[in-house]
Amino acid sequence: MNSKVLIVMGSDSDLPLMEACMDRLDAFDIAWEATICSAHRSPDRAADLAKNAAQRGFDVIIAAAGLAAHLPGVLAAFTTLPVIGVPLAVGPLQGVDALLAEVQMPTGIPVATVAINGAANAAILSAQILALSDEQLQNKLIAFKSELTEGVNVKNKRLQDKLNNRL
Amino acid sequence: MNSKVLIVMGSDSDLPLMEACMDRLDAFDIAWEATICSAHRSPDRAADLAKNAAQRGFDVIIAAAGLAAHLPGVLAAFTTLPVIGVPLAVGPLQGVDALLAEVQMPTGIPVATVAINGAANAAILSAQILALSDEQLQNKLIAFKSELTEGVNVKNKRLQDKLNNRL
Amino acid sequence: MNSKVLIVMGSDSDLPLMEACMDRLDAFDIAWEATICSAHRSPDRAADLAKNAAQRGFDVIIAAAGLAAHLPGVLAAFTTLPVIGVPLAVGPLQGVDALLAEVQMPTGIPVATVAINGAANAAILSAQILALSDEQLQNKLIAFKSELTEGVNVKNKRLQDKLNNRL
Amino acid sequence: MNSKVLIVMGSDSDLPLMEACMDRLDAFDIAWEATICSAHRSPDRAADLAKNAAQRGFDVIIAAAGLAAHLPGVLAAFTTLPVIGVPLAVGPLQGVDALLAEVQMPTGIPVATVAINGAANAAILSAQILALSDEQLQNKLIAFKSELTEGVNVKNKRLQDKLNNRL
Amino acid sequence: MNSKVLIVMGSDSDLPLMEACMDRLDAFDIAWEATICSAHRSPDRAADLAKNAAQRGFDVIIAAAGLAAHLPGVLAAFTTLPVIGVPLAVGPLQGVDALLAEVQMPTGIPVATVAINGAANAAILSAQILALSDEQLQNKLIAFKSELTEGVNVKNKRLQDKLNNRL
Amino acid sequence: MNSKVLIVMGSDSDLPLMEACMDRLDAFDIAWEATICSAHRSPDRAADLAKNAAQRGFDVIIAAAGLAAHLPGVLAAFTTLPVIGVPLAVGPLQGVDALLAEVQMPTGIPVATVAINGAANAAILSAQILALSDEQLQNKLIAFKSELTEGVNVKNKRLQDKLNNRL
Amino acid sequence: MNSKVLIVMGSDSDLPLMEACMDRLDAFDIAWEATICSAHRSPDRAADLAKNAAQRGFDVIIAAAGLAAHLPGVLAAFTTLPVIGVPLAVGPLQGVDALLAEVQMPTGIPVATVAINGAANAAILSAQILALSDEQLQNKLIAFKSELTEGVNVKNKRLQDKLNNRL
Amino acid sequence: MNSKVLIVMGSDSDLPLMEACMDRLDAFDIAWEATICSAHRSPDRAADLAKNAAQRGFDVIIAAAGLAAHLPGVLAAFTTLPVIGVPLAVGPLQGVDALLAEVQMPTGIPVATVAINGAANAAILSAQILALSDEQLQNKLIAFKSELTEGVNVKNKRLQDKLNNRL
Repeated sequence: MNSKVLIVMGSDSDLPLMEACMDRLDAFDIAWEATICSAHRSPDRAADLAKNAAQRGFDVIIAAAGLAAHLPGVLAAFTTLPVIGVPLAVGPLQGVDALLAEVQMPTGIPVATVAINGAANAAILSAQILALSDEQLQNKLIAFKSELTEGVNVKNKRLQDKLNNRL
Repeated sequence: MNSKVLIVMGSDSDLPLMEACMDRLDAFDIAWEATICSAHRSPDRAADLAKNAAQRGFDVIIAAAGLAAHLPGVLAAFTTLPVIGVPLAVGPLQGVDALLAEVQMPTGIPVATVAINGAANAAILSAQILALSDEQLQNKLIAFKSELTEGVNVKNKRLQDKLNNRL
Repeated sequence: MNSKVLIVMGSDSDLPLMEACMDRLDAFDIAWEATICSAHRSPDRAADLAKNAAQRGFDVIIAAAGLAAHLPGVLAAFTTLPVIGVPLAVGPLQGVDALLAEVQMPTGIPVATVAINGAANAAILSAQILALSDEQLQNKLIAFKSELTEGVNVKNKRLQDKLNNRL
Repeated sequence: MNSKVLIVMGSDSDLPLMEACMDRLDAFDIAWEATICSAHRSPDRAADLAKNAAQRGFDVIIAAAGLAAHLPGVLAAFTTLPVIGVPLAVGPLQGVDALLAEVQMPTGIPVATVAINGAANAAILSAQILALSDEQLQNKLIAFKSELTEGVNVKNKRLQDKLNNRL
Repeated sequence: MNSKVLIVMGSDSDLPLMEACMDRLDAFDIAWEATICSAHRSPDRAADLAKNAAQRGFDVIIAAAGLAAHLPGVLAAFTTLPVIGVPLAVGPLQGVDALLAEVQMPTGIPVATVAINGAANAAILSAQILALSDEQLQNKLIAFKSELTEGVNVKNKRLQDKLNNRL
Repeated sequence: MNSKVLIVMGSDSDLPLMEACMDRLDAFDIAWEATICSAHRSPDRAADLAKNAAQRGFDVIIAAAGLAAHLPGVLAAFTTLPVIGVPLAVGPLQGVDALLAEVQMPTGIPVATVAINGAANAAILSAQILALSDEQLQNKLIAFKSELTEGVNVKNKRLQDKLNNRL
Repeated sequence: MNSKVLIVMGSDSDLPLMEACMDRLDAFDIAWEATICSAHRSPDRAADLAKNAAQRGFDVIIAAAGLAAHLPGVLAAFTTLPVIGVPLAVGPLQGVDALLAEVQMPTGIPVATVAINGAANAAILSAQILALSDEQLQNKLIAFKSELTEGVNVKNKRLQDKLNNRL
Repeated sequence: MNSKVLIVMGSDSDLPLMEACMDRLDAFDIAWEATICSAHRSPDRAADLAKNAAQRGFDVIIAAAGLAAHLPGVLAAFTTLPVIGVPLAVGPLQGVDALLAEVQMPTGIPVATVAINGAANAAILSAQILALSDEQLQNKLIAFKSELTEGVNVKNKRLQDKLNNRL
């Protein structure tokens, strides 16, 4: 199976925050590759990654970075694939810097930004994009949405039990 | 031609900010529909819009709102289509409120957020998503990227002329 | 006794932050129900909860959520009951996102927002509203206000003792 | 008819921002009084206003102020009536100071805060509170909610006309 | 010796943050009194404290509070003595709310605001004010300034030793 | 009459914002001098101003600056007189930078910071300090406080007239 | 004369904000070139510019950009020359986004960031760097510093005249 | 070997944050001196340090401070050497105050500001400046840049191993 999603992290310290992304893609049976590549420390490889992503068969790029998080924007500069940005809460500003550096892209080069530390949501957004031409994945997304609802109901039932015991 | 992109605005006062989105979709020959629908003032229709969007043939929803901008998240709650959020710089906080209300979605329900007032980028992101299964559109995106580069070069040439005259 | 206040939490992880609300309502002998319901993960039930709250006898809804905290606004969209929003300090932005997503509601659909993590104050505000037609509760509120004053005086006396020992 | 809502403004320069509140209360046929009273420049009268509000027949106090907006909190200190705070976008911080000074009240003394410049929403929230014991007003609120929905639909129809002419 | 400085804290939990203020006043031999009094929970006593402070012989009031920190402004409303505000880093906003609620006072009623948690500086500012008519205190302040400089020099010497050992 | 208050402005463009300070000092018959002196462009003179202020007979220094507003802190470094800082809303950050650069002084060197653009309040705070040893000025401050209250009452009367005509 | 400073702007709309930079370099007789080049729209040329800057004889790069201002960081990724970043107050966030995107660079790749819209200061910082090996330029900087001081004195004299006329 | 870089810290508590700067300078074989000197507590020595830095042979000053971080700007006022500012994440605002107090310098006196806690980057920026007239250092910087790239590659290889084991 060809990998569809390319995950790029600015540093290996980002891995713990991004495992939820990989787990979620796995849960949807979406093949992915991950690499560590910095917009600033390995800029040539970053450019190459983005330039070659489409012909290597990727459909979506997920880029995660903290601080002055240029990585998603830099990748987006070199590809027409959708690039999803995950701002990471690294350093004293807790991701406010990364959020603004990812979302405030100038006209022409969008980055689809998700929440600070929103690794799982980056995977789900990828799935939503891929599912447009993959009915099986679409069904998985619909099932996942039901699970989310069911999860709330289960938690609510547990709350009711707890509250009954409270009285 | 079937409309592929559904544009939802919270208010008719958002239209001037969103025309750049429509113009850009037109430039890519992407068929779209636009509607005014509020997450708070017409919540039932908002739910219906999102629930029926997929079967009406839409592939992407673009939702634009200001202030406590719940619209993209509320639509995303009712669909598995990718939802792109455009925070609008309305009111005294100049879109900071809308940005946070759109991008900080909880795990399970992503909103692909673009820049404050990033109407054109919402269109381009839609095109990037649709182009994954539309080679012609992919070529248009590649051409558009060249135009962006060329536009910079043209502006640079004009700058050089201006600077030469300065001396 | 009919429950008067409906407490809605976006997640079961919000329970520890909201127990102060329940305790305070209990102290005022105000009957309440609590449920976990997400604006995004169980949106249909959220709509139903709000639509039916009045006829189920509730007078006030308290909704607590973190991050892009749409829950109070989404409930307010479906009811004419007063909705009190409690922004929760969840995630790296420490409730700034939730505060703005709750308080910055557009014209037509107010959310009565209290402080970040202001669970007890949501209960007190509920009591102030209910007391308008409940003289006994009004008296409890007046007594509670005296207790607050007395509490300050007691703390002040303890401070004076401590300061005397300091010398 | 006895006045039910007491509107307190910190300065006469706040009047233009608060007229939407008065107009909305008038539209609901809710009798109100308005006064200018400063928490800092006329603090004794502020205390008296709050202390006497209940026995003068008021059910709700709406307090609007900008900058270090202490007014709602100061009034709330002297009454058990619900106090609604309207932060005003006055001065260089555009209401961020007023928002935090109103909403971040300590445990015991809530202020029901609405959006920055949210004058009309303060009126609607008042109506929601008063309607709990006023069926006629409840019906007006339900009708108002329908009007809001209808207003969106009308705007949407105008948009569709405009878009048809665009093509 | 008559007490010159009145320290007012909104809560006994503020005491640990304010001990540096008391210690610094003691070091200058400035007599002080401290009390716990809340602008919201004991507003009448707060008004009385401020109204009577001058005739009780106080020259300066130091007021410390967190969150919607109205205390300094409320005291300033009732006195012509200089009021020094200490914003406390309490709660999720880490004192940003308290800073704005203290410093952004409207024209007519200033609060002399020091840094977030700036308890010692409030004492020093008090001393600077009192020293205008107390030559002995003025000399202590001049000596204290020399000690500050000397303290830096001592630390610098220790650094040089450490750096020499480093090589 | 000896000048008591030294007003230092970082730039002549600050004069319009600071005239309210001068007018208010004049209204209290407090003699003042004003000078333009920059912490960065004329640092030696800034140091001299502060070093000599006490022996030139000044009791209070008011320093106004925008952007990285070091002026009040730099003056405070060279004097034991109380230094009042007025952050000015200059440049794109609208005084947030100046506020933090003035108020967040480290332990040992306080700056008594007033509101952004709070020129008049700097004058009033000066008067409160000077009045501690000037009974006539104390009486003027008490009268001024009454005028503030009276001013609110006058505005309120005008409001009542306006509201009566409204009906 | 070989150009020493390369000015890179993200867009021609940045030119008016950057003219102060060019004027200041001219005043120091520092030869410069300017170009429009976008990190996102012409990323290959941006990389080439930075890679070749040193061998083309440039000693300093000044990069100005607004919004998600990646340009200085992207250039810095490809060169060992010092890169000075000028955040521009473009768009609703007034340069806060650009400031964070430029200054918060990760370890290894610094950007020497100056104030928002600090075009002239970027030129002066360049001059300070170049002057380390250019005694004539060093003298010009020393003279410029004297002019700054003299400018303050001139403005102060004008103020004294104005104040004398005021009396 | 003559020391080229002067490191000035506002307090000895800043040393742990600044060791990365010293280590990085050592790695480049750049001689440095470090001193503790406060803009506010030892202002005369601060002025002297800056005034004499050039004739003592220093080429670059690195100044690190937290809170109202005036130190870099105050030093810059007294020298024409490039001054690099390191804002430190000290206190409740986590370096936002220090960042603005360092970067927002007025026209005429730039501070080359690096990231909050960006100690190592201050060293690298110093090296980039010094390398303009030191070919050996230039080569070290080029080698360092390769090491950064290599470091990313090594981390990426480790990631690939980890991911292979994951499957």
